[in-house]
Amino acid sequence: MRGFFRGVLRAQRLWVQGGGPGWGAGYCHWRPIHSCSALVYRRHGPDLDQLRMEQWDFQAIGPHSVRLQMLAAPVNPADINMMQGTYPILPEFPAVGGNEGVGEVVEVGDEVTSVRVGDWVLPVDAGFGTWRTEVVCEATELLRAPRDVSLLGAATIAVNPFTAYRMLHDFQQLRPGDTVIQNGANSSVGQAVIQIAAALGLRTINIVRNRPNYEGLSADLKAMGADYVITEEELHRTGLGLILQEVPKPRLGLNCVGGLSGGLVLSHLDSGGTLVTYGGMAKKPLQIPAKSLIFKNISLKGFWMTQWKRNNRKDLHLLQSVVDALCAMLRSGQLTPPRCVLVPFQQYAQAIQATVQPHQPKQVLLMQ
Amino acid sequence: MRGFFRGVLRAQRLWVQGGGPGWGAGYCHWRPIHSCSALVYRRHGPDLDQLRMEQWDFQAIGPHSVRLQMLAAPVNPADINMMQGTYPILPEFPAVGGNEGVGEVVEVGDEVTSVRVGDWVLPVDAGFGTWRTEVVCEATELLRAPRDVSLLGAATIAVNPFTAYRMLHDFQQLRPGDTVIQNGANSSVGQAVIQIAAALGLRTINIVRNRPNYEGLSADLKAMGADYVITEEELHRTGLGLILQEVPKPRLGLNCVGGLSGGLVLSHLDSGGTLVTYGGMAKKPLQIPAKSLIFKNISLKGFWMTQWKRNNRKDLHLLQSVVDALCAMLRSGQLTPPRCVLVPFQQYAQAIQATVQPHQPKQVLLMQ
Repeated sequence: MRGFFRGVLRAQRLWVQGGGPGWGAGYCHWRPIHSCSALVYRRHGPDLDQLRMEQWDFQAIGPHSVRLQMLAAPVNPADINMMQGTYPILPEFPAVGGNEGVGEVVEVGDEVTSVRVGDWVLPVDAGFGTWRTEVVCEATELLRAPRDVSLLGAATIAVNPFTAYRMLHDFQQLRPGDTVIQNGANSSVGQAVIQIAAALGLRTINIVRNRPNYEGLSADLKAMGADYVITEEELHRTGLGLILQEVPKPRLGLNCVGGLSGGLVLSHLDSGGTLVTYGGMAKKPLQIPAKSLIFKNISLKGFWMTQWKRNNRKDLHLLQSVVDALCAMLRSGQLTPPRCVLVPFQQYAQAIQATVQPHQPKQVLLMQ
Repeated sequence: MRGFFRGVLRAQRLWVQGGGPGWGAGYCHWRPIHSCSALVYRRHGPDLDQLRMEQWDFQAIGPHSVRLQMLAAPVNPADINMMQGTYPILPEFPAVGGNEGVGEVVEVGDEVTSVRVGDWVLPVDAGFGTWRTEVVCEATELLRAPRDVSLLGAATIAVNPFTAYRMLHDFQQLRPGDTVIQNGANSSVGQAVIQIAAALGLRTINIVRNRPNYEGLSADLKAMGADYVITEEELHRTGLGLILQEVPKPRLGLNCVGGLSGGLVLSHLDSGGTLVTYGGMAKKPLQIPAKSLIFKNISLKGFWMTQWKRNNRKDLHLLQSVVDALCAMLRSGQLTPPRCVLVPFQQYAQAIQATVQPHQPKQVLLMQ
């Protein structure tokens, strides 16, 4: 586990040799046979104006390689943090933005058996650089997605639903009828938790902040499968009393807020329960009373999907099985893509700027 | 794990039928053949004036029972909290005080093979009621202590050194040369951690609060085997920089303070490390930044020895193995009893009052 913190992404498609203004054909001793448009940055900075669309050339693919046309790639908060230089892993320069997305295989090397031309594929690891029209990579860097799910579904399962799925599986042995409690229930991961938990037969208690359109939000989350939706204020005031007449005390709590809200989730866990933190939106530390740890035997853990995937990088079968399970839920309608705005690739700046604004739907770049 | 919180101790030596003023021989239909002096309370209260010395009679022992003469029993903070009614498990009334101590077997039932007359023994579980001169219990409620260790050593290993031993074994797979960091290093458990860790070949970084006699305290802890002693202020100022040139980053942190001090231990753990909380002396919640959980994969756990023993109540072999390991350390001098004041049993009130004062050595009641 050592050394992953503030690591550098060294695998930034090294076989995609640079094009761009300073990289004319005169500097190449190989013959470019393909080219792509890519959103590239060469420095970190808070204003995100360092991103430029460049033309990159690349050569013929090797025997183990695959050429993809990217179809769609979302702009996620982690992509922004990577560009700003504030994410715990950072790319080498020049870097292509984007960590998530779906591509279609258009060419495979002679030795490749894991994917075929026409397959939809997703990157295994963070730092793939999905914001481009075409990419060449090793076949082992890809997971397959079936073509009978929606494009938006395939483009957006590998980060948030993947996180939700693993958190519901890795920390407590939950069985149908068991209860999960979470804050930030309206976040992208929160919504995926609601849907995946419902598909697994789990009950969810969903905490949201009070807001003008609370009734509408509550109805939306319940339509997704939320069993209970409750505001932080209401939970402070009434506790879980009535809810616990219907469902068992939660053994798993999910926290993406921190501060008092995280403590609120913790304080409603059953003895022996686990609080999993995967975000810190409030930018305030969790407040943990010693007695919860000692006398209620609560454990606190963190979840970081990027690291989970790296820890399991060699077990492609496991990684593929998560994608398969999520795609089955997409296909059956148990899991729906989040609310998205589709942005033509050329208008990327608009998608970037929208992502840093609060309460915006997910921006998804469309390459084709 | 459910239902242990605020549980009631139901095993309070039910076979020791009550004596005392209201319980004359006229109320008994059995023939008392032994009696003992016991420190008894019949209500909870903050002032601790509810404790009375009473004479209790009891009948002949059964085939699986054992009669002990108690030799020595400490007054621990948990004993005080039980009397005050603030501990998470509470006895039924009438209750005999004391959870720890050493007794000598003076009589065994016909079917008892696990202990013999003359053996030294320790209670397995909390709520034993060790503050009395004699007791009858089931043989399965006892662990053996060898007679070639000091009386004070035997009387004081079952709570604090036991806690230290388990915390060093149960949360991280530590090997000789690995590092442990703890706050409250001068506490009873903290001192046991220093000694047991040294016996196991582990290195310890010991955080204490600054104080007038800091140099003397530091020398004392180093004489016990502490590798490094550092004040909270110094650690805030300089970090672990120089220490980490000599030892690896700690993978296990032990916290009995909470508040900022707990966060200080946490912030110096290696990625993937575990912070174990076993006390909350500062009476302030731990402040845990989300990024420690997510990006450093730190886990937070609690340890409560009483619950650990109950979870393993049926595995007497395991429980005995801990006592044996600790007694071996006592015998070799790797573990020494804490600084104790020996108090004749009749002067118990003095020991109780001293225990609620700060910075007092451990009070140990001597029954014989």
